[in-house]
Amino acid sequence: FSTSPQGIRLYKFYIHSCMRIIILFFIFVDLALAIFEEPAIFPFPLWANFVIEVTCLVAFTARLIHYAKVIPWSNFWKDPKNICIIVVIFLTLLDMIIYGILTEMHLYCVRWSRVLRPLLLVNITESRQLRRAFRSIRNALPHVLYVFFLFMFSVLMFSLMALKLFGKRGLVTSEGRAYFTDYLDIVFDLYVLVTTANSPDVMMPAYNYGIMFSVFFIIYIVINTYIFMSVFLAVVYNNYKKHLKEEVRQLVRAKRRNMVQAFRLLQEPRGDEPVVMRETWNRLVHAVQPGISAVHRELLWNVSDEHNRGYIGRPAFIQLADLLNIQVITLKSRIHPLQIYLPGIYNSAASRCTRCVVQHRFFVYVYDLIILVNAVFIGLDEENPFISYSEWVFLGLYLLEILLKLYAFEPRAFYARHQFWNWFDTIIIICALIATILNSALKSSSNYNSREILDIVFILRVLRLIRVVDSIKRFRAIINTLIKIGPTILTFGQLIIVIYYIFAMVGMELFKGTIQFFENGALKPGHEFCGNPLLNGSAFAKNNYCRNNFNNVISSFILLFELTVVNQWHVLASGFTTVTSNAARIYFVVFHIVVVIIIINIFVAFVLEAFFVEYNVSTSGLQTSLEKKIKEL
Amino acid sequence: FSTSPQGIRLYKFYIHSCMRIIILFFIFVDLALAIFEEPAIFPFPLWANFVIEVTCLVAFTARLIHYAKVIPWSNFWKDPKNICIIVVIFLTLLDMIIYGILTEMHLYCVRWSRVLRPLLLVNITESRQLRRAFRSIRNALPHVLYVFFLFMFSVLMFSLMALKLFGKRGLVTSEGRAYFTDYLDIVFDLYVLVTTANSPDVMMPAYNYGIMFSVFFIIYIVINTYIFMSVFLAVVYNNYKKHLKEEVRQLVRAKRRNMVQAFRLLQEPRGDEPVVMRETWNRLVHAVQPGISAVHRELLWNVSDEHNRGYIGRPAFIQLADLLNIQVITLKSRIHPLQIYLPGIYNSAASRCTRCVVQHRFFVYVYDLIILVNAVFIGLDEENPFISYSEWVFLGLYLLEILLKLYAFEPRAFYARHQFWNWFDTIIIICALIATILNSALKSSSNYNSREILDIVFILRVLRLIRVVDSIKRFRAIINTLIKIGPTILTFGQLIIVIYYIFAMVGMELFKGTIQFFENGALKPGHEFCGNPLLNGSAFAKNNYCRNNFNNVISSFILLFELTVVNQWHVLASGFTTVTSNAARIYFVVFHIVVVIIIINIFVAFVLEAFFVEYNVSTSGLQTSLEKKIKEL
Repeated sequence: FSTSPQGIRLYKFYIHSCMRIIILFFIFVDLALAIFEEPAIFPFPLWANFVIEVTCLVAFTARLIHYAKVIPWSNFWKDPKNICIIVVIFLTLLDMIIYGILTEMHLYCVRWSRVLRPLLLVNITESRQLRRAFRSIRNALPHVLYVFFLFMFSVLMFSLMALKLFGKRGLVTSEGRAYFTDYLDIVFDLYVLVTTANSPDVMMPAYNYGIMFSVFFIIYIVINTYIFMSVFLAVVYNNYKKHLKEEVRQLVRAKRRNMVQAFRLLQEPRGDEPVVMRETWNRLVHAVQPGISAVHRELLWNVSDEHNRGYIGRPAFIQLADLLNIQVITLKSRIHPLQIYLPGIYNSAASRCTRCVVQHRFFVYVYDLIILVNAVFIGLDEENPFISYSEWVFLGLYLLEILLKLYAFEPRAFYARHQFWNWFDTIIIICALIATILNSALKSSSNYNSREILDIVFILRVLRLIRVVDSIKRFRAIINTLIKIGPTILTFGQLIIVIYYIFAMVGMELFKGTIQFFENGALKPGHEFCGNPLLNGSAFAKNNYCRNNFNNVISSFILLFELTVVNQWHVLASGFTTVTSNAARIYFVVFHIVVVIIIINIFVAFVLEAFFVEYNVSTSGLQTSLEKKIKEL
Repeated sequence: FSTSPQGIRLYKFYIHSCMRIIILFFIFVDLALAIFEEPAIFPFPLWANFVIEVTCLVAFTARLIHYAKVIPWSNFWKDPKNICIIVVIFLTLLDMIIYGILTEMHLYCVRWSRVLRPLLLVNITESRQLRRAFRSIRNALPHVLYVFFLFMFSVLMFSLMALKLFGKRGLVTSEGRAYFTDYLDIVFDLYVLVTTANSPDVMMPAYNYGIMFSVFFIIYIVINTYIFMSVFLAVVYNNYKKHLKEEVRQLVRAKRRNMVQAFRLLQEPRGDEPVVMRETWNRLVHAVQPGISAVHRELLWNVSDEHNRGYIGRPAFIQLADLLNIQVITLKSRIHPLQIYLPGIYNSAASRCTRCVVQHRFFVYVYDLIILVNAVFIGLDEENPFISYSEWVFLGLYLLEILLKLYAFEPRAFYARHQFWNWFDTIIIICALIATILNSALKSSSNYNSREILDIVFILRVLRLIRVVDSIKRFRAIINTLIKIGPTILTFGQLIIVIYYIFAMVGMELFKGTIQFFENGALKPGHEFCGNPLLNGSAFAKNNYCRNNFNNVISSFILLFELTVVNQWHVLASGFTTVTSNAARIYFVVFHIVVVIIIINIFVAFVLEAFFVEYNVSTSGLQTSLEKKIKEL
């Protein structure tokens, strides 16, 4: 991009974290609009929704224009994500105009552009990880498709066989319907069997008729559920890994190219090869990472300039980017503040003894025991006054532990950024203290026993127990791995939200209002068949599934989550096919293919890869040389 | 082992395939005894079972003694598998004596030694793959256990939270039972939720009470089902891979050591280094693989002796074992037999034209079209006479295709060992022909419409359609990979049979006779509650699950397969807990942990690894050099 001072100022402004937060906020508002639009949880008038949405669109447009000013004009139009944003904004405006006019004329219409909203989340510059995930899906897709066609061929063949074997035998299901007489129904039933959701039920009529027929279903499940589903995982995983490697290779190449360019700008001739002087290097590091300490910078220079010559060549310069990425935790042995302000007391024999006790292993064991006793007490009935008083004792003990630890260890080191468990402990205990006090205050003052606060108190009490995990070394290792793969899982969470949002919008347009849930509904007519007489006596109504509907965006998300978990999805689908038509099955099957076969497998691939990397990683050469230097110092 | 002529004769006799088949037969008989023992499908008198079992034990003992004669005495006692066999034989005899005496005295007793039978299958020398699989499980176990404890800790914590959150709210399930009031029940319910088997049902009461409570279940499922189950897969897979690598490394080392020893025996001094002469080498290859052709041997020698010196050094000799493993398919361009016997007709213009047509791509397309038309005809009602006659047309067309192909291609090349699809086609068509003729003969002669033969005809008809897959290149690649991983899956099948057998024996002793199934039972009393009044009105009886019982070994295997598929396993378990006690849940949970968490994950790891190897394999150096030589020739 342009290197004029103005251009750089614009760029700095563009990548400023404040601007990013604002744009993320607008995207959040735009997505959250689904809460207020029909079918709404909190209905807003149409004009209010339109005003909010136009504001968001203006913000996106402004951001895009800003971006266009920063990068060259030709690059801007080459980038598909900019074009995508422009198209989405244009289509949204078009849809709003059409919808506004049709609503004024009291005609039925659909806000179809809402499906496009998640594309904005994908295409803003900041969600690089998310775009990479989508690219890896796009790359895996052709390979997955071939396996999918083969899998569908297998399902169709087995369905044909099932039709021939069972169609003429006059069997009935446990609900009294004819068993395996219609080809399309068989295909659907056997597709559901692949997901195992109707596992023994679909087999029982044939099995009751003759024991040998179970062989048909066993072979079917082994081939389609076990082998094909594993092959899907293998294909997705393989492509994901290949794609990831390719992306990483490209990134490394780009980094190297940029570093070489930087070197060319900063180099000075010295002898027969160009070098970068220490002074220039220092200024560069300071400009790139202003927060870096002088000691840390010194250390990095020592690693780069192995022979202490005061200048470095190209290879040593290029590795700077990697060096800056290595986290160096500065463990300063700071003096405890109490030692500074109250040296007499802090250094007394009693104080030293206390600190010794707290730092002893035995102290940890005692508190592990206390936690276990606490767990038993929580399990007992909390309305017993003895138990409810004991709660205060435990709270006091936990508080005492934190205070003792703060006394024994230096507070700033105790609350360093990587001390996950100390932070966790303190926050939980303080929250529990506040909630418990609030709860007893409410209880004694007004006879009003607030369930919400009590619920929070219960949750906090149980969360406190998790701490015991930290005492066992093996557990800690597993938990640390899980914490490390946290960011990846968050990227994955965004991916899921994008997919869910699209399906929720479509589902709400298709099925809104068809299935009703009545809160405290035992009094209202029709509560036993979800307000729709078609569902009278159906499995959907019998299982109390009325709240699983598409009547607002939160219900839709929960329903989609239930569909992701797969179990009983055919019953949930059957509810919606009963109230609309059999074609509604397409929606549910497509959801299953997209989310369970593709997305969940990518998630499993994510976790597998992250775990393998954690298990098998060996510290890289650069890191080793840094560690060597640290030891030398 | 001993290298005396007698020792070698004994060893050759020991590894003779005939002896192996005999011992496998006895193992099969021993395992199959479960069909005839109480609870039996075909009850045999006790003495008959005892005679058969003793015969098997004698056979195993004879085999063991034979083995002891072949290998040195000290090695025999060092090998745990021999000790295991001795212990199993001894325990079985002991159990038979006790059981015989107690039965004579009409006392209740249990044939507990039946659980040990699969150990014989594992420990006979031939099932090396199976033992490797068990070793890899044993190696993965400690790592899996730590994750499992952490996972159980998480389940227990969530259960405690659920008890506190929902226990006092007085909610009821859709069946009218109290919701989440007993801690142990909650733990079981939430464990079932991890398997997703009761997925939305267990959440519905809380969700209907308040929409926010669904968050509890969503977090629970994300952590325990998605993350922990993926971690289980990661841990099992990682250990499996590590262990496999270690085993392969050891095997390679052992092979090398043996080859070096062989070289030392065969070497002759020549110049400054010992060598093996061509003559010796030829005799060795002939002794090791008598079936190898002279051309093939020549080829291998040319690869080993690159410089045509007539002798080879140590490195070239050592690679012999690998060379012999490489499959060389000799594609002899044999002359068609008809050309030899009827050259005039075979070489006529009409004949040549026919052959040209058959070999043309168009011929394949035409038959793909015929298969598709056939698929539509199969889907139609076969009682229509027009359709049933068309079946003969299709059979004729397929037969014609095979005959034409045999005419155009050389029959021995057409039925070569690697021509999977040609074999498949021919067998299916011939079977279909026989079955169809048999069926119409029976139909016309005696008015008796045999359903069994008709079923077979239907299955064969549909199987014929599978051939269409072979025409699409991508599909063929996937299918070939699947066929290649076939042997691994078979090993896995043995593993599953061992585990199933153990669980089936235990399950039959625990639950036999508690749940009854009445064939054509609508007339018999108690058929609606499986012959056990305790099941009256239970979900188990309502779902028609009566045939899922432990009353004989085949039912048990089918039930265990249903439990492996996981869906509805809590309903199946509830049937058995209702008729016995809640402690029966332990059996089902242990089965789930062993089979689903460990064995199925190993299966997925198997398939993943096999696929990755297939995708990423590059022909090894040795294979390349062989290919180079072939091209040179």
